Amino acid sequence: MDLSKFIRNVEDFPKAGVQFKDVTPLLGNSEAMESCIEQLLALIGDQKIDKVAAIESRGFFFGTLLAQRLNAGFVPIRKPGKLPYKTLKEPYQLEYGLNALEIHEDAIKKGERVLLHDDVLATGGTARAACNLIEQLGGEIVQCNFLLEIEFLNGIQKLRKHSVQSLLKY
Amino acid sequence: MDLSKFIRNVEDFPKAGVQFKDVTPLLGNSEAMESCIEQLLALIGDQKIDKVAAIESRGFFFGTLLAQRLNAGFVPIRKPGKLPYKTLKEPYQLEYGLNALEIHEDAIKKGERVLLHDDVLATGGTARAACNLIEQLGGEIVQCNFLLEIEFLNGIQKLRKHSVQSLLKY
Repeated sequence: MDLSKFIRNVEDFPKAGVQFKDVTPLLGNSEAMESCIEQLLALIGDQKIDKVAAIESRGFFFGTLLAQRLNAGFVPIRKPGKLPYKTLKEPYQLEYGLNALEIHEDAIKKGERVLLHDDVLATGGTARAACNLIEQLGGEIVQCNFLLEIEFLNGIQKLRKHSVQSLLKY
Repeated sequence: MDLSKFIRNVEDFPKAGVQFKDVTPLLGNSEAMESCIEQLLALIGDQKIDKVAAIESRGFFFGTLLAQRLNAGFVPIRKPGKLPYKTLKEPYQLEYGLNALEIHEDAIKKGERVLLHDDVLATGGTARAACNLIEQLGGEIVQCNFLLEIEFLNGIQKLRKHSVQSLLKY
């Protein structure tokens, strides 16, 4: 199934001059969702995965689905102050200023094989911060897995150390 | 499987005097996740569901999983400014001040049968706002479905019109 038909372009979101790739038409169609899960799983192949880590919030849409299909645990990586237990925090650069991501310090055990998932790879800043958190806990990143990649932003450059796979490229 | 073993109590989160129910140990265990999905589906039975709507962000963990198992579409209900397309907005009361939720105006068609899911039913304010959004779009709310209910907060009172089901009650 050609999933690009289910991605809606929204102009000037979140700010003027930006074209946003809206995945909600895909989420709203159960056949497209099923095809999307199967295509994301095909990117992973038969590699063993212990944990699927996904980045708040849109990474959660397919993160738990991937975890469940892979018989893996699920790990949410969230904005500061959202995770209730003891966390590690990693800052990342925004266009203006800094933000950060957090992970629970008991979310991944040393040596566990981790799939990082998010919906979109853009500049790669959040994905890089998420990888750093996973590696600080001793996780081995098997693949950085995205629904969409905005190629001209060259986010893959920030993830050079890792295997990066995306379903759709723009 | 007794899922309560996988819910961690975190004291004084998000503020002093509050005991937070942390679902991340459940998410991290694939057998517990599978059992949780099956138990949530059992609450729904064989009722036909066209769309599963879930509330940002923790409702997304099981929202897409439920949608996929029910062969239903998935609808994210989000905080203001997060959804890129045309939205309806519904305010709700916080302890101090107001917040709001949004839904895409094309997310639900008139007459569609909708399951509302969130992780926790507390005061019921967000769930009530989410129900209002679904009904403004013409959706029929089949069930309000929660992983946990904090009974003393009496959130069920705000959802009197609807069938409310929770897996775990505290």
